[in-house]
Amino acid sequence: MKIGIIGGGSIGLLFASYLRNVFSVTVYTRTYEQAKEIIENGIILLNGIKQMRIPVHALPVDEWPGDEDLTIVAVKQYQLDEVIKKINNVDHSNKNFLFLQNGMGHLKLLSKLKAKNILVGSITHGAYKENANTVRHNGVGVVNLAVYHGDQSFLHYLESMLPTTFPATHHQDYYEMLLNKLIVNAVINPLTAILQVTNGELIKNPYYFKALNELFSEIAYILNLKKPEDELQKIINICQNTAENRSSMLKDIEGGRKTEVDSILGFLLEEAEKQEKKVPLVSSLNFLVKGKEIKREE
Amino acid sequence: MKIGIIGGGSIGLLFASYLRNVFSVTVYTRTYEQAKEIIENGIILLNGIKQMRIPVHALPVDEWPGDEDLTIVAVKQYQLDEVIKKINNVDHSNKNFLFLQNGMGHLKLLSKLKAKNILVGSITHGAYKENANTVRHNGVGVVNLAVYHGDQSFLHYLESMLPTTFPATHHQDYYEMLLNKLIVNAVINPLTAILQVTNGELIKNPYYFKALNELFSEIAYILNLKKPEDELQKIINICQNTAENRSSMLKDIEGGRKTEVDSILGFLLEEAEKQEKKVPLVSSLNFLVKGKEIKREE
Repeated sequence: MKIGIIGGGSIGLLFASYLRNVFSVTVYTRTYEQAKEIIENGIILLNGIKQMRIPVHALPVDEWPGDEDLTIVAVKQYQLDEVIKKINNVDHSNKNFLFLQNGMGHLKLLSKLKAKNILVGSITHGAYKENANTVRHNGVGVVNLAVYHGDQSFLHYLESMLPTTFPATHHQDYYEMLLNKLIVNAVINPLTAILQVTNGELIKNPYYFKALNELFSEIAYILNLKKPEDELQKIINICQNTAENRSSMLKDIEGGRKTEVDSILGFLLEEAEKQEKKVPLVSSLNFLVKGKEIKREE
Repeated sequence: MKIGIIGGGSIGLLFASYLRNVFSVTVYTRTYEQAKEIIENGIILLNGIKQMRIPVHALPVDEWPGDEDLTIVAVKQYQLDEVIKKINNVDHSNKNFLFLQNGMGHLKLLSKLKAKNILVGSITHGAYKENANTVRHNGVGVVNLAVYHGDQSFLHYLESMLPTTFPATHHQDYYEMLLNKLIVNAVINPLTAILQVTNGELIKNPYYFKALNELFSEIAYILNLKKPEDELQKIINICQNTAENRSSMLKDIEGGRKTEVDSILGFLLEEAEKQEKKVPLVSSLNFLVKGKEIKREE
């Protein structure tokens, strides 16, 4: 099977590294320079103490032919609009897609897409892009997969083909699957980004932990969670297990990049608005993160 | 008239510098070393481009005789409990007091005090303590004064005696006077301390400004403000006029000191609780500031 991966960020490079052994993979990068670097030197995968050089084909995304059986879209949610337009320029009604965006903001864009099967995924791997062709796999996790559109057979096939070192978990309900990750991200990401602290600090510092609880309560109220205590415990466990990590939103703020706040808190604000619920904490934290984004531009 | 000033911080030193020309002043400091420094070298007042050496008497606060006609209490609100106890050890029913704490948290402590006249003050001067005996007067303002207990005559006398370079403004309603300053502090201080930005950033950054508006709305709701738009405009003006300043709460966090959050947001939380109002933003911001306080201790 031929696979195209749109996006040469940490997740795109990670997927390319692991899928290269099983499939014919091409990575489509935003810049010509990155594609050239990957073609000439391969992708360097740093995995614990090992370092592997993995030859992978690459092209700038403008040259994407769109003829692969499966296209994995690994761009940020705020870059997705453009990619969907590109996809819809050509008939892809017998092709398959997998979308790996964080949050839930991308779902409304996917409804515009015509394809045979559309999968969505959420990743628990830790990955850090060290440079144009180097990715550090610094936390082994799992790829959660679910069908957004189409039937289960393609998902089952894909799942069965993935290497054991890069396993997938199959979920029946794509909405619930993405929501589970969104809840975690919506609590940990904004607080760590605003306070500029590691994940563990949110549970170690008793006052930060009280703020975490208040934010979680507002999110549980928006989403009408049936068992909020289970979800809260999951967040606490993740803070414990990733205590030394800096969240993706904190890293984006520190690195002067745009964050994914629109697809996380933005999604929750839309949900709250639909239900005419007042959510002052989510609203203000959204503004504080967006304010920090602006500050980086100065 | 003999005046004692309890507290050798920026406000204590500032008052001592200006009142020294009119009254007999003694500063009571927490440490013996600071008192010694002031006795030996005077207080150095940096006022714009001028530098003045002002001889002032000083003693450690443990040696406070409590025999002055007026005692000005210029310690932080969280140090006040101890000072009130010290005052109440001796009969002061024919003495006068002026309390200069920020916020409103100190009012319930003042009700325990027995004295002839109790004044409260709020200051719009900018003052920065450069070292044990040096204070920089970096923003000329005014001393707002009002009677908390007693009659107006002592206040009028004090007001008439103050030098024109250090004027007072007389207010009829002490509660309203302190509340006006509290509203400003409650909006500017926590946001600048959490975001670690200057006052001006809160109105220059459009997203921070939205968060400022949301926080102000919640405070207006707690305090049942009749003309919230006027109060909001005052906050905006102050952010403009002090755009380059770092708020006292931000400076306390940066300097690793305890903040006055209890007497500002803590007071608002108590007011909200009395009225059974939910105030998620004030509550969470209070936790975030207290979390930052804890962090400094590590």
